[in-house]
Amino acid sequence: MLHDAIREIVARALAEDVGPGDITTAATVAPEAECRGEIMAKADGVIAGLEVARAVFEAVDPEVVFEVVVSDGTRVSAGTAVARLAGNTRGVLTAERTALNFLQRMSGIATLTAQYVKAVKGTKARILDTRKTAPGLRLLDKYAVRAGGGENHRTGLFDGVLIKDNHLRAAGGVGEAVRRAKAAHHLLEVEVEVQSLQEVDEAIAADAEVILLDNMDLEEIRTAVARVAGRCLIEVSGGVNLETVRPLAETGVDYISVGKLTHSAPALDLSLEIADD
Amino acid sequence: MLHDAIREIVARALAEDVGPGDITTAATVAPEAECRGEIMAKADGVIAGLEVARAVFEAVDPEVVFEVVVSDGTRVSAGTAVARLAGNTRGVLTAERTALNFLQRMSGIATLTAQYVKAVKGTKARILDTRKTAPGLRLLDKYAVRAGGGENHRTGLFDGVLIKDNHLRAAGGVGEAVRRAKAAHHLLEVEVEVQSLQEVDEAIAADAEVILLDNMDLEEIRTAVARVAGRCLIEVSGGVNLETVRPLAETGVDYISVGKLTHSAPALDLSLEIADD
Amino acid sequence: MLHDAIREIVARALAEDVGPGDITTAATVAPEAECRGEIMAKADGVIAGLEVARAVFEAVDPEVVFEVVVSDGTRVSAGTAVARLAGNTRGVLTAERTALNFLQRMSGIATLTAQYVKAVKGTKARILDTRKTAPGLRLLDKYAVRAGGGENHRTGLFDGVLIKDNHLRAAGGVGEAVRRAKAAHHLLEVEVEVQSLQEVDEAIAADAEVILLDNMDLEEIRTAVARVAGRCLIEVSGGVNLETVRPLAETGVDYISVGKLTHSAPALDLSLEIADD
Amino acid sequence: MLHDAIREIVARALAEDVGPGDITTAATVAPEAECRGEIMAKADGVIAGLEVARAVFEAVDPEVVFEVVVSDGTRVSAGTAVARLAGNTRGVLTAERTALNFLQRMSGIATLTAQYVKAVKGTKARILDTRKTAPGLRLLDKYAVRAGGGENHRTGLFDGVLIKDNHLRAAGGVGEAVRRAKAAHHLLEVEVEVQSLQEVDEAIAADAEVILLDNMDLEEIRTAVARVAGRCLIEVSGGVNLETVRPLAETGVDYISVGKLTHSAPALDLSLEIADD
Amino acid sequence: MLHDAIREIVARALAEDVGPGDITTAATVAPEAECRGEIMAKADGVIAGLEVARAVFEAVDPEVVFEVVVSDGTRVSAGTAVARLAGNTRGVLTAERTALNFLQRMSGIATLTAQYVKAVKGTKARILDTRKTAPGLRLLDKYAVRAGGGENHRTGLFDGVLIKDNHLRAAGGVGEAVRRAKAAHHLLEVEVEVQSLQEVDEAIAADAEVILLDNMDLEEIRTAVARVAGRCLIEVSGGVNLETVRPLAETGVDYISVGKLTHSAPALDLSLEIADD
Amino acid sequence: MLHDAIREIVARALAEDVGPGDITTAATVAPEAECRGEIMAKADGVIAGLEVARAVFEAVDPEVVFEVVVSDGTRVSAGTAVARLAGNTRGVLTAERTALNFLQRMSGIATLTAQYVKAVKGTKARILDTRKTAPGLRLLDKYAVRAGGGENHRTGLFDGVLIKDNHLRAAGGVGEAVRRAKAAHHLLEVEVEVQSLQEVDEAIAADAEVILLDNMDLEEIRTAVARVAGRCLIEVSGGVNLETVRPLAETGVDYISVGKLTHSAPALDLSLEIADD
Repeated sequence: MLHDAIREIVARALAEDVGPGDITTAATVAPEAECRGEIMAKADGVIAGLEVARAVFEAVDPEVVFEVVVSDGTRVSAGTAVARLAGNTRGVLTAERTALNFLQRMSGIATLTAQYVKAVKGTKARILDTRKTAPGLRLLDKYAVRAGGGENHRTGLFDGVLIKDNHLRAAGGVGEAVRRAKAAHHLLEVEVEVQSLQEVDEAIAADAEVILLDNMDLEEIRTAVARVAGRCLIEVSGGVNLETVRPLAETGVDYISVGKLTHSAPALDLSLEIADD
Repeated sequence: MLHDAIREIVARALAEDVGPGDITTAATVAPEAECRGEIMAKADGVIAGLEVARAVFEAVDPEVVFEVVVSDGTRVSAGTAVARLAGNTRGVLTAERTALNFLQRMSGIATLTAQYVKAVKGTKARILDTRKTAPGLRLLDKYAVRAGGGENHRTGLFDGVLIKDNHLRAAGGVGEAVRRAKAAHHLLEVEVEVQSLQEVDEAIAADAEVILLDNMDLEEIRTAVARVAGRCLIEVSGGVNLETVRPLAETGVDYISVGKLTHSAPALDLSLEIADD
Repeated sequence: MLHDAIREIVARALAEDVGPGDITTAATVAPEAECRGEIMAKADGVIAGLEVARAVFEAVDPEVVFEVVVSDGTRVSAGTAVARLAGNTRGVLTAERTALNFLQRMSGIATLTAQYVKAVKGTKARILDTRKTAPGLRLLDKYAVRAGGGENHRTGLFDGVLIKDNHLRAAGGVGEAVRRAKAAHHLLEVEVEVQSLQEVDEAIAADAEVILLDNMDLEEIRTAVARVAGRCLIEVSGGVNLETVRPLAETGVDYISVGKLTHSAPALDLSLEIADD
Repeated sequence: MLHDAIREIVARALAEDVGPGDITTAATVAPEAECRGEIMAKADGVIAGLEVARAVFEAVDPEVVFEVVVSDGTRVSAGTAVARLAGNTRGVLTAERTALNFLQRMSGIATLTAQYVKAVKGTKARILDTRKTAPGLRLLDKYAVRAGGGENHRTGLFDGVLIKDNHLRAAGGVGEAVRRAKAAHHLLEVEVEVQSLQEVDEAIAADAEVILLDNMDLEEIRTAVARVAGRCLIEVSGGVNLETVRPLAETGVDYISVGKLTHSAPALDLSLEIADD
Repeated sequence: MLHDAIREIVARALAEDVGPGDITTAATVAPEAECRGEIMAKADGVIAGLEVARAVFEAVDPEVVFEVVVSDGTRVSAGTAVARLAGNTRGVLTAERTALNFLQRMSGIATLTAQYVKAVKGTKARILDTRKTAPGLRLLDKYAVRAGGGENHRTGLFDGVLIKDNHLRAAGGVGEAVRRAKAAHHLLEVEVEVQSLQEVDEAIAADAEVILLDNMDLEEIRTAVARVAGRCLIEVSGGVNLETVRPLAETGVDYISVGKLTHSAPALDLSLEIADD
Repeated sequence: MLHDAIREIVARALAEDVGPGDITTAATVAPEAECRGEIMAKADGVIAGLEVARAVFEAVDPEVVFEVVVSDGTRVSAGTAVARLAGNTRGVLTAERTALNFLQRMSGIATLTAQYVKAVKGTKARILDTRKTAPGLRLLDKYAVRAGGGENHRTGLFDGVLIKDNHLRAAGGVGEAVRRAKAAHHLLEVEVEVQSLQEVDEAIAADAEVILLDNMDLEEIRTAVARVAGRCLIEVSGGVNLETVRPLAETGVDYISVGKLTHSAPALDLSLEIADD
């Protein structure tokens, strides 16, 4: 991520939380007070977002010293310190909640992703994210998926071709839609959503590089995998959860995309423990 | 919310998702194609964010007609249409995911909030949100809490005084911290977090308007409620969930604040069903 | 104030003044020339805004050294140096006017505020500002009021409840309006503007925390103070000037709010005296 | 002024004042309430800024109808309605203060400017503004000066050459500085500040188009005017006030520039009187 | 392109050109004057950018009526009217230059692209653009290439994999670099620049989808085409001009990318002819 | 140029090119790899934009060391190193294209300008730019013209009076238009476009400081120069090229303005040659 991109997201979050000023801290903490603190995991999980958290403290007070203890992508257990910081108490307290909001969200996504990745271990299936991210936070959400061991599907509508049912209806079928997309975009793989084995055949005939089986049952998926026989990649999606993901992976598909990773991951519990300096 | 504020959040989300253009739609959908569609709930829940969704379609294509079927705050069951739209197919498809991302997140928050509100029904306790929101989306997250029947705690650090443990340590105790805050902010209520009955007494002696009991057990809370005896308001927080919230409410506290409402609410399942025009 | 907030206001002011470049300096001053200078008070007053002035020089040329001689809130007499600076002459001259524009406006506000604060000395009345600030400069205007010894009323419409005559008309009276506001905002004091003793009674009955007596004469104010008898705080406003403020304060009110502090304060005369290096 | 420029200044001012929302109005005014109102002058003065005020109401609620009664630049007496509006009460009340802040500042500047213009009537001297404007509001401040009958000096450092004492020191004298500036900027008049009759001669010899006599007494100015004898334009500045401006003008100078117009003009008293619809 | 994206680029261009105001027009044209005009081609070429030009007039004065006569991508000869407009003269004159600057640049790119496309007609080679665009104008530059009949290579570093010599050096060779890229990006084609036939073999062995022959001579290219024998796509680049492009195309390559299209296209001559209304 | 202005243009260009990330570099270059490189001229020309290029590398990676070898305005031959840099390979490669895009465009403009300047050497004519710049890049384009030895005409519509044919038509003739402009703008020279000798006379009678002869032939220009006889400055424009510019200059005009300098200058060929560290 570009420094400027992080800085801009952080500036917006601080504007929203701090606005005209932290009135509680101004009233109760002496301007010259110094403190030390640790960001502690209060639950087991995978950490992501430490550089974003650092950028929050830097934006509020460039003199705060922030040292990471573990790196993004590390699995930690409750009670582990993930970062240490020291500096002016006012700055630290003003930045605290915004820094934790980033870190808890990103670590929550990384933690949930890691659970899915672990659930499919030993199969060839890889866990993919989707575009179902929090508006304004896509770069961070997708970074967190990678930190959890997942892979990123396209960033947005601009950098990947994924022909869905609504495009199919407008184009008049799988074959025609894939042909149009391939004619327009030679340098991108073309992925197409299919609903039936016949559409699988059409997609292969039209040279689609990836087919997406949306909301098919296991039996249908197994049949589709056999029919494709390695001629293109296969992604499945739709209502995947931690119970269903393993059987899905064992069908032999290449990718399982999981919207929950970014739209429904619970935050990881982290807190800032402060000691006087 | 100011129109400009929504427009700006929507513009940012679209820039992130659409960027240089929706290459799939451009390749597969004729420029003049028209369609009609419905946004359908695919699970039971409480809807929030329809005006934001409308703003997304408007930003992509001002000619798309968007009609709400239910209003924000309405409880719907799976299969209900919550909005109808009609217009150019390209515009509709390009806007779809971003509009749903807002609507699913906001409705997820409203739905979870409504579950907490229902759980405490009949007690005097009210459900409050916290500052644990997705960075950049605080206004929308807090709006969604209201749509679900919850109430908003302060917007940010600037519009409410909440003295927490770290402030207390810096100020040298509950009494001193509350006195400093009241001297600085005559026009705001002063809330202070306390850890013990002795601190409850100090807070009352210093004329705090609200005390926050953080992570106390039910027994301690009941004792604190009795000790306070109506002399100030009482908020509890810390690890509240749908099982524990009712007993907490029955202790007689005034507020229960729940971070989960905004940091861990699963998205509500909604989808756009399109028919050709 | 957040660093970013100051930086943004400064960047905007420089864009407006310097735009494509300082053509006089470019034509007449050698690129390598260095100078020293002092910002001098040319009239008696109270200084505010030195950190903003520093940010202006830094934005134009990060190498300019800027040392404050007195701190914000200090009363100085004409002829006092308030800051010293040294650096590249081009940078210094390009930044000069913008830096002074901030400093003269903020010091003008601080100086006028200090005159009001002095005028009420010995009474319990405190001097408050209003929302009548220069658009875009509210944070700086309110900071300057504090530097002059005044206190800040709410920052904006979002962080304080102040029910004015137009709200009363819409709500149907003082009692109803106060009750509505208190029901909606438990964590903020509710202030209400009243026009008569009967409305004072209504406000107290509805548990308003502050009442605002707008444009009442001294006799009415004294009666109101007696009637309130400490049950809530009292603010007065309306056409206050340096002659009338003392008698107003002696009525026993808690606050006197003065729009003039920010909408009509004359600039304090300050200039940059430069010597060649 | 470009629409976009006004819209941006207005959006910033509203963000600052309304932020997350107008909590008093939300609590006390019914969402469907409608009202009518008039913006009334409460003192004699010259009006400026009505289109900016209109832009404020439009930004908050595009449905509010705003009709100007007088045009910018009109002299009005206390009690005159300058604009009428009608629309949703919530929108009107939320926009009120921001609209008035613009209108009162701009009308204050126009009113003070008109006093100076009137004071020099019958002489050839014209009243000019300076760059001593409120940071971020230069375009509006300079517009208001024109509305009051004054003229604008350069907009910023980029669109006019004005060689001041600090440039002279760096360049090594009036003659050399003017020659450098004329060599660099053929398409702009070159103005130079002079301290003595000898420098007047140097400026004329170097073909300066305008000379600025800063802080000279009347006698010196008269001598300089005679010496110049129409060979270039003459501007005077420095501590001008409403008493001294007439004698200054009678010396025969072409321009008198007055910093007070924009840095110390008291706001004109205006208010919004609302009636229920 | 998103409406908002165009609006933002246009707003920036107008801010730069109009800034505080069009002083010539304000001084010489009556505020109420109306006019009609035509945008005329003064040289033969291909038109692109009419919607951007329309957005410029709209931003300056929403009442100006702008009608396109030909659509983007149309080849016109000198003397053809490409758009007609009518409205307030001041608005039209203020917008004129900025609108033409967009239109002339974009039409220049479209015109040059069309010459290259024509030069390779009848071969299978397609003309591609590069990332060598004017900073800030990439979307418009790439749109203009399409209008001229060319195709777009990747938008930026984010939406296409193109392994160049510097990546190869860092990765340790073609084979390793391609394998790394394919492992990381399953959903994008991988393109790699090669310098020799041996590297061609390595690229094919590693399953690269596209190879880029940079600065090879015709003989080498022909050999490479034969060696590849359809197993992947071939792009050539480097110093292509209108003389060399045809022989290059006849070697049988799939793509020829031409930096000149966007970094060195001369503007197409267009002007606004105005008649009084 | 203000640092902030360059930073903002650079940030926009990087956002456009790098967006969510440089996926090729991330996949193929080790995070800790270091490199050294040189920016080499691959054609003869005049360099401009090195500080902008530096700002690009700094924005991507503040640790990259960037040393200029020649200064802006230097004429170099093919094979000359113009800057050297060293740092993290990923940062260098990600910044490379954006830095070169600025440098190649600006050096292209400087190089073309220098050719025109050389062509008129020995005459009194000076080469001027126009407002025909790439939207969003005017400051850089005009800077590059100066680096090539040209001079800048006005920056935009706000800082110079240039009365063109459309203004004349609206004002009712040269004399009236010039008088209006001079009355409105005492501190700016007034330039007017004329079509005939009679209009030359009108312009002189109205005291225009500069007259612009647009698209006149050499004979007419010579006659106009004789008629003016030094009473005002003369600029010519319209279809100037490297063949026609010398005869134009020899007519005795003061300025020749050339739109091509900024709307049609071919980029100068420059490249970044990297060696491993």
